Amino acid sequence: MLKINPRFLGQVIIIVLTSLVSVHSSSHHRVSSAVATESCSHTVECNQDPECNLDPQLVAEIASYKTVADRIISEVLQGSFKGRAYSDLETFVDTFGPRFSGTPTLEKAIDFMLDRMQALSLENVHAENVSVPAWVRGYEHAEMLTPRKKKLNILGLGSSVGTPMGGLEADILVVKNFTELEQRADEAKGKIVVYNAEFVDYLTTSEFRKRGAAEAAKVGAVASLTRSVGPLSVDTPHTGGTTYLEGVAKIPAACITIEDAELFQRYQNKGQTVRVRLVMNDYNLEPVISRNAVGDITGREAQLEKVLISAHIDSWDIGVGAMDDGGGVIITMAAVELLKQLNLRPRRTLSTVLWTAEEVGLVGAQAYLDEHMQELGNISVLLESDAATFRPLGLGFAGSQDAGCIIQEVSKLLVSLNASSYQTFEKISSDVDVFIPHGVPAISLRTDLTRRYWYHHTEADSLTVEDPEELDLCLATWAVTAYVLSDISVALPRGDSSKPYLLIN
Amino acid sequence: MLKINPRFLGQVIIIVLTSLVSVHSSSHHRVSSAVATESCSHTVECNQDPECNLDPQLVAEIASYKTVADRIISEVLQGSFKGRAYSDLETFVDTFGPRFSGTPTLEKAIDFMLDRMQALSLENVHAENVSVPAWVRGYEHAEMLTPRKKKLNILGLGSSVGTPMGGLEADILVVKNFTELEQRADEAKGKIVVYNAEFVDYLTTSEFRKRGAAEAAKVGAVASLTRSVGPLSVDTPHTGGTTYLEGVAKIPAACITIEDAELFQRYQNKGQTVRVRLVMNDYNLEPVISRNAVGDITGREAQLEKVLISAHIDSWDIGVGAMDDGGGVIITMAAVELLKQLNLRPRRTLSTVLWTAEEVGLVGAQAYLDEHMQELGNISVLLESDAATFRPLGLGFAGSQDAGCIIQEVSKLLVSLNASSYQTFEKISSDVDVFIPHGVPAISLRTDLTRRYWYHHTEADSLTVEDPEELDLCLATWAVTAYVLSDISVALPRGDSSKPYLLIN
Repeated sequence: MLKINPRFLGQVIIIVLTSLVSVHSSSHHRVSSAVATESCSHTVECNQDPECNLDPQLVAEIASYKTVADRIISEVLQGSFKGRAYSDLETFVDTFGPRFSGTPTLEKAIDFMLDRMQALSLENVHAENVSVPAWVRGYEHAEMLTPRKKKLNILGLGSSVGTPMGGLEADILVVKNFTELEQRADEAKGKIVVYNAEFVDYLTTSEFRKRGAAEAAKVGAVASLTRSVGPLSVDTPHTGGTTYLEGVAKIPAACITIEDAELFQRYQNKGQTVRVRLVMNDYNLEPVISRNAVGDITGREAQLEKVLISAHIDSWDIGVGAMDDGGGVIITMAAVELLKQLNLRPRRTLSTVLWTAEEVGLVGAQAYLDEHMQELGNISVLLESDAATFRPLGLGFAGSQDAGCIIQEVSKLLVSLNASSYQTFEKISSDVDVFIPHGVPAISLRTDLTRRYWYHHTEADSLTVEDPEELDLCLATWAVTAYVLSDISVALPRGDSSKPYLLIN
Repeated sequence: MLKINPRFLGQVIIIVLTSLVSVHSSSHHRVSSAVATESCSHTVECNQDPECNLDPQLVAEIASYKTVADRIISEVLQGSFKGRAYSDLETFVDTFGPRFSGTPTLEKAIDFMLDRMQALSLENVHAENVSVPAWVRGYEHAEMLTPRKKKLNILGLGSSVGTPMGGLEADILVVKNFTELEQRADEAKGKIVVYNAEFVDYLTTSEFRKRGAAEAAKVGAVASLTRSVGPLSVDTPHTGGTTYLEGVAKIPAACITIEDAELFQRYQNKGQTVRVRLVMNDYNLEPVISRNAVGDITGREAQLEKVLISAHIDSWDIGVGAMDDGGGVIITMAAVELLKQLNLRPRRTLSTVLWTAEEVGLVGAQAYLDEHMQELGNISVLLESDAATFRPLGLGFAGSQDAGCIIQEVSKLLVSLNASSYQTFEKISSDVDVFIPHGVPAISLRTDLTRRYWYHHTEADSLTVEDPEELDLCLATWAVTAYVLSDISVALPRGDSSKPYLLIN
């Protein structure tokens, strides 16, 4: 059972009474407001954890945000912010294009957003320096030499070393997984190891991209090629990061298309030798200084206590990162602008953070963690939108069960957006992963991922994949969530403690 | 009302009686046989043209093929041909790769199929020489220079002239259609015209690819770039043919991706100048000799009367043409092999024709037409499978209404394959288009095209898009159709004549 800080009990009662009165009006939205406090009715998605046992006063307090939530939603769907996220995203990606770690373009994009934070009169606008990798994709070319000539559509993996300048040539060994690599370790020496793992889900299948080069190097391979991580291909290579291990040779690593991985597998199955020529003039420069961009709406009551709303401003060097994570950046900035426009200053500080260098290893997030380790206890919850900005489904949450119960109540405010479904997660391959092990509760905006891995880390991550109405729905979801969580009387409880985590000011 | 040749009436009566007797057996398939003669029952797709008024004896004759049709189907779905089409296609595309007009590889693939026709003991196996274009895709490169640098993923269009060796640079003019080009003709001089037409359907939208260069040249453009023809893109360029006009300058023509076409449109809408650098070292060689491959199962009664079963053996130079038209070639060859194996020699000659050089302008088909103009009257119907080999839907037909009524009856034999839907067409952008204006009835295998234009004329036209079970269903549909139409007592009636077109031997 969660307890409410008595300081706010009076306010809550007033809000609840106001809310009850409004139920009797004829507004459809207001009727929904009352319904939303019942779990599992026919109008509310039945996603209430049966274990939840929140203080009814807290439930009522959260429900009382219905009016302001609907005001936010209405401003996005019918008001001055309609179409705004798409239009902002268009300006952003068409102006800057890709914003890759280590490049001047990324820094210009960061300056652009810092300027915008200033223009919005955010407080405490500043950049925090981060040392980030600077990897350069040089000329890349691959071709199959036997059993027939064929150009291979590849993309070097971020941080990959290059081949010798003139390239390398070797026969390939195709394996379906690390177990098969182990079993055939004695065949791998001097070969190019090809990982041909069918897409299961991103976290599972991306392991072959992340660990593939190191594991192949351990058994003497001269390079590794990984089947692109996705369920669909139109001869589409997907880049991504790979991790070398201390004391293990660094070998060139690239991704190939699903089509070519399957082709290689068939040739190998038939006993035909596949010989590949690989040229990757990629290289790593010394790290350079980039920046996380920060700007706050200072809390009206608890300035030191924070809700972080975030996205990562960097992208891969291919495509323009409209989906990953331009959309996240844009709805994060627009959500804050909307709250400013509606004069909604929350109780605790709502701090906007645009992470740098996420794609190359969550580098900006790690730097923030290191810099702010002593203040992590002040973060009620960290929000990040980095799961694309397609049609929103609801909130994903990593944190304590009690906190999850609060998020489920907040989710009910998103019913009119069809974005009230709730899921927990432990790891999401994004910046929040850095904070979760330190006990910081984290929320990820969940969107319809049907098409995400068609485009993810490819040249096709462009404005073409985005939809203005879906972006509006994402923005409304994001703004409501950010406002309510930075304004409610309790911060999110952590760990197994049943004690509420209260405002510290 | 169609009349049946009295020579066959006795046989038909016997077959019908046999069929009626078999209805009383407990076989589910045999019960369906009787049902299939009723139009619009709940077990038969309700696609019977209400205008059809076939002689009941002919209807009964067609229905009487149910037993042999089911034998063919069973041999493919459960018998010795199960998985055979996929396996043959794998061998074919993995051995030869792309089979482009003018290349030695195409000729090797033709030899391979001629050898196979011999091995199957087809009669009259021979090649018919055809002079075909030899266009060479050289180094191709394009990039946007302003408002920001970006590599453009392009493919030169077949038969396109090259740019000057060092490339060309020009500002672009984006138009949505030919009307807009006309309206803005005075802006086009010296520019690269970009056609940004959203995909409607293939025939409609491919007009911009086919006519785009010529229309742009008329108004003084130096090159044309066409948005790729398809409903989905993962930064995917689609090649295809373009047609120059006599007396109009030949300018370089390529396709760009949907993403880049939309990007150009946005920049132009915002008044930003887009400058593009285009290098296409493509060129046309003198025509070379290729061949249509022909092999027959000579008719047991009417040797000179023919049903043609066909597909085109050439592909584009990118991808391997697994879908376009490797699958068509393979099911055509496998259908004939299956009929041979089942000792089904039809009444009239079933002639297999593998067209060369379809992609570069229906060149093989045109040569066949010219060579065999005097024999067109002997062709009962021309079958071509060139609408991919995904899940079969049924038969498409171009011809007289009476003939269409016969095809609808034949389609009922395909109910168990869920491939009995019937549609008419006039033009299909394939070899049959050459014959239809000369009155030759034509059938196209219709398959589920949901994914076709994702891959069409791209690097992704590979074995990966094909499915063994779908290929089996296509093969069964194709073999039944070919056998029944080459064996029934009447040839397909042409034009408005209500007279049956009878066996001529």
